[in-house]
Amino acid sequence: MKIITISREFGSGGRELGKRIADKLGFDYYDSEIISAVAKNSGMDAHYVESTLDNHGWQDFSITFGGTIHSVEYLQASKIELLVQQRKVIESIAALGKDCIIIGRNADVILKDYHPFNIFVCADKDAKLKRCRERAREEEHLTDRELLRKMKEIDRGRAHTRDFLSGTAWGDREAYHLIVNTGGWDMKKLADAVTGFAEKWFESKE
Amino acid sequence: MKIITISREFGSGGRELGKRIADKLGFDYYDSEIISAVAKNSGMDAHYVESTLDNHGWQDFSITFGGTIHSVEYLQASKIELLVQQRKVIESIAALGKDCIIIGRNADVILKDYHPFNIFVCADKDAKLKRCRERAREEEHLTDRELLRKMKEIDRGRAHTRDFLSGTAWGDREAYHLIVNTGGWDMKKLADAVTGFAEKWFESKE
Repeated sequence: MKIITISREFGSGGRELGKRIADKLGFDYYDSEIISAVAKNSGMDAHYVESTLDNHGWQDFSITFGGTIHSVEYLQASKIELLVQQRKVIESIAALGKDCIIIGRNADVILKDYHPFNIFVCADKDAKLKRCRERAREEEHLTDRELLRKMKEIDRGRAHTRDFLSGTAWGDREAYHLIVNTGGWDMKKLADAVTGFAEKWFESKE
Repeated sequence: MKIITISREFGSGGRELGKRIADKLGFDYYDSEIISAVAKNSGMDAHYVESTLDNHGWQDFSITFGGTIHSVEYLQASKIELLVQQRKVIESIAALGKDCIIIGRNADVILKDYHPFNIFVCADKDAKLKRCRERAREEEHLTDRELLRKMKEIDRGRAHTRDFLSGTAWGDREAYHLIVNTGGWDMKKLADAVTGFAEKWFESKE
């Protein structure tokens, strides 16, 4: 069984890239399907599950220690529960034994015993802003500054959740097989290039 | 003209990977040739040039400012001169107009107007240690701890020199097209995979 995981910066195009690679390879593709399954299993609203898992759940508070104020971040209990549910869903996907691509959700860490091929997708700030603008739905009313802040917050949430789940840092180059910058690429051609690279990896493991 | 630049962590195998890609593509390959040219142009000893450019040149000193001691790093004048010479050599390589691969030396920054394809090569600590041990010459007498410290110092020197030359950080994922982790790869197969990826990039720019 071959598993590809795709971690990505918000707005980098990682999701589109993953979908295209899945189509090319004929792999199953899991993205929002995971949210739906978590919602179903937990009996919660899918929109609430998505927003808690993806954007929120980390809260700041201040404590005074040794005369100094420290900012502490903690994870809401509800998010911890959803992360446990999400882990189970991802493990059950792998247990199906079929080749697949999983977008985000720390599948690279959760499924490490399956030796997935782990890709991180990034892009520079301007490219991400442009991409978000092109597909804006809920972000439509935001100024560039607000959108950049939102992108940063989402990525910060992803990084924190990863830190919580594993010892490796989100986006840290040594934690992935390949880090791809989508800047300057036509997405279809990039999907070709990444597919070729991943195929070589799986061939070398046969 | 197609230019590929390869930046790399010490011990990651970036040099071998670059050589193999150059062989596959039939590109000219520049690595220690650059040091020889700088030595020739400056009338200095090649070994001195190499050690100044690669490992040393940054020095610490402390200043007191506002009642607090600050550590300041500065670049030796001799290193600045050699960096200028090196830049000229790299620019003259590009001016030849032939497809080439250049290893390290911030060629990605220096030649940015030529739109090179920029690769960063990394590996985890244990893989780099193993690789250094296999090819040890001058490092033979070092303990693992000393070798790790040396690796860290060399990479720190590379990062500082890059900061000095450009606004982007060394190893920062958004500064490269592709970041490749050599861990788990047979180097020949990895060279195939990266070559295929780079070819797709150049095709998409035609």
